[in-house]
Amino acid sequence: PEKLWQKIVEFAWRLVKLGKEDPRRIVHSIKVGLTITLVSIFYYFEPVYDGLGDCAMWAVLTVIVVFEFSVGATLGRGLNRMLATLVAGALGVGAHRIATQLGGIGEPIVISVFVVLIAAIVTFMRFLPKMKARYDYGLMMFILTFCLISVSSYRDDDTIHLALKRLTTIIVGSCASVIMCICVWPVWIGVDLHNQIATNLEMLGSFLEGYADEYFKVSDEDGNSIDKSFLEGYKSVLTSKPSEENMANLARWEPRHGRFRYRHPWKQYLKVGTLARQCGYKVEALHGYLLSEMQTPLEVRNRLMEPCTMISKESSKALKELASTIRKMTKSSVPDLHVANSKAAAENLKSVLKSDWSKDVDLFEIIPGAAVASVLMEIATCTQQIA
Amino acid sequence: PEKLWQKIVEFAWRLVKLGKEDPRRIVHSIKVGLTITLVSIFYYFEPVYDGLGDCAMWAVLTVIVVFEFSVGATLGRGLNRMLATLVAGALGVGAHRIATQLGGIGEPIVISVFVVLIAAIVTFMRFLPKMKARYDYGLMMFILTFCLISVSSYRDDDTIHLALKRLTTIIVGSCASVIMCICVWPVWIGVDLHNQIATNLEMLGSFLEGYADEYFKVSDEDGNSIDKSFLEGYKSVLTSKPSEENMANLARWEPRHGRFRYRHPWKQYLKVGTLARQCGYKVEALHGYLLSEMQTPLEVRNRLMEPCTMISKESSKALKELASTIRKMTKSSVPDLHVANSKAAAENLKSVLKSDWSKDVDLFEIIPGAAVASVLMEIATCTQQIA
Repeated sequence: PEKLWQKIVEFAWRLVKLGKEDPRRIVHSIKVGLTITLVSIFYYFEPVYDGLGDCAMWAVLTVIVVFEFSVGATLGRGLNRMLATLVAGALGVGAHRIATQLGGIGEPIVISVFVVLIAAIVTFMRFLPKMKARYDYGLMMFILTFCLISVSSYRDDDTIHLALKRLTTIIVGSCASVIMCICVWPVWIGVDLHNQIATNLEMLGSFLEGYADEYFKVSDEDGNSIDKSFLEGYKSVLTSKPSEENMANLARWEPRHGRFRYRHPWKQYLKVGTLARQCGYKVEALHGYLLSEMQTPLEVRNRLMEPCTMISKESSKALKELASTIRKMTKSSVPDLHVANSKAAAENLKSVLKSDWSKDVDLFEIIPGAAVASVLMEIATCTQQIA
Repeated sequence: PEKLWQKIVEFAWRLVKLGKEDPRRIVHSIKVGLTITLVSIFYYFEPVYDGLGDCAMWAVLTVIVVFEFSVGATLGRGLNRMLATLVAGALGVGAHRIATQLGGIGEPIVISVFVVLIAAIVTFMRFLPKMKARYDYGLMMFILTFCLISVSSYRDDDTIHLALKRLTTIIVGSCASVIMCICVWPVWIGVDLHNQIATNLEMLGSFLEGYADEYFKVSDEDGNSIDKSFLEGYKSVLTSKPSEENMANLARWEPRHGRFRYRHPWKQYLKVGTLARQCGYKVEALHGYLLSEMQTPLEVRNRLMEPCTMISKESSKALKELASTIRKMTKSSVPDLHVANSKAAAENLKSVLKSDWSKDVDLFEIIPGAAVASVLMEIATCTQQIA
């Protein structure tokens, strides 16, 4: 029992930490709870109940299923659900009409055939990558409502009424979630995406900022402690692709908010994200040299230190400036300046290398560093075009 | 109208292509259609209907929601749904009991408070990464069933009966999906994960196989045509992390099948995957040198060609052998051999470099290649331990 207690405490602590990390999560949870209760109070009032019967429950269920953390996701789900219910309801009623015209034993057979066909085709369509990204939920709801309406017609001939009831309850539920989600402390996934891209650039920037110092000091102190977290921060950049794509998909559903328009160029963010990732791969390579067994002799290092540090610092500044221009959504020529500086430094490094410094072999481990830095620069200029 | 027609044809073509890529998708779609129809025929028979009433519909809905492409996903969803319904149903009945004891106006208030609390807490728990990975659906179902049962009790005092009906219909639906999914052409996500890991290693291997030839030829022909797809194949390795994690999560639900046990060490696959990705980052760096502006003079290249090619070929062989041992699930010493060979080649390269070859600066662009290759080797040995 004591172990159990310990586990519960641990679990509670983890929950508290989760809340501290991002207080919006707590707000979200409360919002969901309140919306569900509001909608279910609806259910409690007699007149509504008389009109909709047991179906009023669907409104509550809709809220639970549709209400997501961000506005984009909630809107996407809500619209998907409403549209799918509308279309599938109409089709279901149509299928029922055709089946009743045949009558007798033909009716269930016709309906079964319809159900198999529609379910199989729509399930198959869910595999299309484009559909999957934006309409997956809608397609599922489509099958669901179609089956509900047409299969219910075995029992109850008033399918139109059923379809309408389903549609209205789902509209009520979806609208309640969407309104609650937008009006009370909204979480805009577009803003999250925006910030994540900027943070990623900052991560890369702070890596490069510290990198040169770190690299040229390795042989002195053999790096013990101080804060080296900046050397690991960029790792998250490397695997950010799917989360960015997902966010961009959801962000497309969001209406105008803050300084984001409805048709904000979310694809541009993906492009910047891709460039940042390529940059991240190169940074990963640089990081590898920190740990590499083959180390450049000190004497050689010292010669190279100045231009390398220059490149690294300047490109770091450029990236950080870029991040802040993205955050502020302004255009600025400061990054260009830093890019130009670091390109000059790269040229400088090249000429140092072309002089008679090629006596020691391992020296040239540093060239890739320079090469990377100059590639980095290209990336930075490229990024500049956007934002 | 002609444009519309064109679009429809295009869409149909895309669907056909999708089916050709992976025929299991077509089988899956048909399976879903049939299962839904089977369960809805159940609904058609009078005795079942009399027992369950309108709730029989839930069985059909369960099939639609639970039936996923792979066995792991279906089982995970089915178990989540059944367990959540059981627990939430019991809690809902309990809440109803407490509320009726108070009676009068107190009843709806107590129930509302319960709903807000439970919904908010469970929604919050869904943010826990561990919960999200495996029990997200179950937690949502928990809220859903709890609200359904306790809110319905406003109207109908027979909550136990309702809860039982819901539980039985959901069990019927889930079991139908799971049985259909396992018995008819099952798609094991574990096998998919297994193959993906092996394919990733092969990709890296075939990159390295062709790399040396490509690199040392660049200045001759300036690379026009032939098949260079192998140079791009590895790109998918770089961003494979989330999909691998997802697959491993789902695979954990799967029972014994083929040569996979129930508690197959799926985490090992993730480790191999991570190593493969690190290797992929290094390969990305190598790829960068192909496109780099700074090119090593021919004369120097020729000197380095032999050991570099050797390293690259041997590590490629090692990776491919590893992939095939993973595929066959055997142990083999062949990869070790290749690793040893390529390590020897790396040593060889080092000594070549240490001789008086350091006249030309850009020469040393190749060192990182060698360094990468030797790191690669370490990775390969590391991978060897598993499989």
